[in-house]
This record gives sequence, C-alpha cells and structure tokens, in this order.
Amino acid sequence: MRVAELGLRTGVSIPTIKYYLREGLLPPGERTSPNQARYGDEHVRRLRMIKLLTEVGGLSIVAVKQVLAAVPAQRGEPAGQPPRDAWLAARERVAHLLSARAWNSDLDAHPARALVAAIAALHELGRGDLAGILERYAAVSVELAAIDAAVATDPSDTEAQVLTLVLGDVVLAALRRVVSASGAEQLIGVPLAGKAHQSTASTCD
Amino acid sequence: MRVAELGLRTGVSIPTIKYYLREGLLPPGERTSPNQARYGDEHVRRLRMIKLLTEVGGLSIVAVKQVLAAVPAQRGEPAGQPPRDAWLAARERVAHLLSARAWNSDLDAHPARALVAAIAALHELGRGDLAGILERYAAVSVELAAIDAAVATDPSDTEAQVLTLVLGDVVLAALRRVVSASGAEQLIGVPLAGKAHQSTASTCD
Repeated sequence: MRVAELGLRTGVSIPTIKYYLREGLLPPGERTSPNQARYGDEHVRRLRMIKLLTEVGGLSIVAVKQVLAAVPAQRGEPAGQPPRDAWLAARERVAHLLSARAWNSDLDAHPARALVAAIAALHELGRGDLAGILERYAAVSVELAAIDAAVATDPSDTEAQVLTLVLGDVVLAALRRVVSASGAEQLIGVPLAGKAHQSTASTCD
Repeated sequence: MRVAELGLRTGVSIPTIKYYLREGLLPPGERTSPNQARYGDEHVRRLRMIKLLTEVGGLSIVAVKQVLAAVPAQRGEPAGQPPRDAWLAARERVAHLLSARAWNSDLDAHPARALVAAIAALHELGRGDLAGILERYAAVSVELAAIDAAVATDPSDTEAQVLTLVLGDVVLAALRRVVSASGAEQLIGVPLAGKAHQSTASTCD
C-alpha cells in the first residue's frame, strides 16, 4: 500500500509517518520509484504499536524508540483491519468491571476513559490476549487503596492522599521495572514469601 | 525571608519562583516595599511540594495547579531545614529493600534512583510518615509481576512484556483513581472479596 493508505488505516497523519520513518521508528518501505514506496501489514502493525505507546502509554518518542528496540521482531500474522467495535467492546468490558465492583466513574471521562482506551488499543493491535490485566489489576488496585489508607490514616489529610496517589504511581512503576529486571522473581514464587510481611496478608485468614 | 533565600532553601531558581507566583501556584508574599516581599515557612513548604510533584511525580504545571487546589490548607508546622541526609537515608532504605528481596538494580540509575528520589522527597517535605509505601508496594509489585507472567505467558514474546509493563502503568494509575473516587471501598473491606477472584489468591493456600 502507499503511504496515504497506511495513514488511513492507522489514523496517523502522513507528515507524522514520514517523521517516524526518518527517526527509524518505522522501517523503510519497499521503494517502487524515486519518490514512492510500498508499505505492508508490518508497517500498519508497527504504527498501531507506536500510536498505542505514545497516545495511550504517554511515552515520548525517545522512550518509544528504546521500547521498540526491545521488540525487534514484529509478529508474523497480518495486522488486518482492527475490529470496528474494539472501542465499544472495551467500553462494555470496563462498564461491567465498574458495575461489578460498584465503582462510580463516568465512562467517558478520565480515569475510566483511560481504561477503555488501553483495552481498545490492545484489541486494535490484535493483543486482546493481554486484556485480562484489567480485571486482575483491579483486584490489586483495591489492595493498593487499602495500603494507602493504612499509611495515610487521616482522611482529612488531603496532602497525604495526594502524595500517596501521585508518588505511588512513580514508586509502583519503578518497582515493576526493578522486579521485571530481576526476572527470576516471577518463577521462583517469591510472591508467597512477600505476602507474609504485608498488611493485606490478613485477606488469607 | 526574601525571594533569594526562598530560592536557596528550596533549590528553585528565582525566575521559576516568580513564574509560580504569577500562575498562583504559590501565594503572594507579604509586601514590604513596592518591589520587595517577605516570604515565610509556608512558601518553603509549598515550593518543596511543587518541586516534588513536578520533578519526582512528573506532573505538568497544569496538573500541579489542579492537585494543589485539592490541598488548600498547608500544614501548620514550620518547614525547617530538610534533613541534610534525606537522600542518603532514602538511598540506604532502598538498598535494604533491594538486598532483602535479592533484586539487582543499580541504585544510581533508573529505576532504583526513582525510588530513592521519591522517598527522599517525602522526607524533605516532612512527610516521612508516608515512606512506608515503599516496602508495602514492593510486595504488591511482586504480585503484579506474577499477574503479568500469567497474562503474557511466553517469555520470548517481548512485545507482550513491553505492553503489560507500559499499558499496565496506565491501567493501574487509572484504576487507583477510580478506587480513590469510590472512597467507601477502602472502608468496607472489599479487598477480601476481590482477592478471591484473583490468580494470586493461591498464595493463601
């Protein structure tokens, strides 16, 4: 396909696609004439990945470059058209979660909208197999709220609420990367030992 | 104190302090002459809070403005000098955590450095009472890694690892805000119910 169709299929503007090509985020297409090139499904998929990392993940172009360097081989299957109802299906899934947990949150406003965007983006990328993090992380986020309440004990101390929420994101993200870099943790069952020292261990009683 | 001393005590440049004053992030000082004002401990503390939210929390000035609007009353105690060894103490605390969990991570590089910065910033703000999120979140981050491993089952599928890590941050942050807005969750013990549906519930066996 030409660059114009690549843009149409991904919703990325042509100047932006050309910028990604120059920066090496997107591999060059197959040159068909001095000023034309042909692009394939792998370009569609790569562009969707870049879009997901920047628009949903909030990463800078520099960070996307680093991340994509760690994902050298794009998966083989053709990207195809994303399911047209990816957004609607994601919206329904988030709505179901909120309702099951009796959480009140406007689906069309932040923060619920960020959940919808993340799940929809996974489906558009053909990675609906990972969408289960939504429900699994939801259980963990309740644990985190319990920790926050145990640390910031005075509900009228809004400063403490704000600090645990904002710094908590940073601390969690950093910890996840520390754990991720120490891969063995995931295999040798340290969660069991870790849980014993934790306030939420009482959920096991 | 004059604006120069305010800058020295917080490490914030005078043009930046003047910008915060214009933007209303920092309340005006007490005017002592047509072009001089006197600032107090509450300004030191507020500036440290702004610094923490921007430099450690990564918030934009717009976001800081919103957050500070939710923290109208600054706490009464004088800000004083931050403990000179806040950074060293935070570094030691993080080192202890990493060693106890046998996590390998360079303390002077990201991501461990982000943990040190967050804990040091809390102490500099006189909010060392909240630093316990470090060890408590560490236990949860192991759970999260177990979830990631359960969802992205193929260790050679680096795309899945990257997506669960990057989108995971976004999903978690959004979920924490959903839970935080549904405050009752923290009180009525939903963690117990939530855990039962979760893969890591097996840690209770």
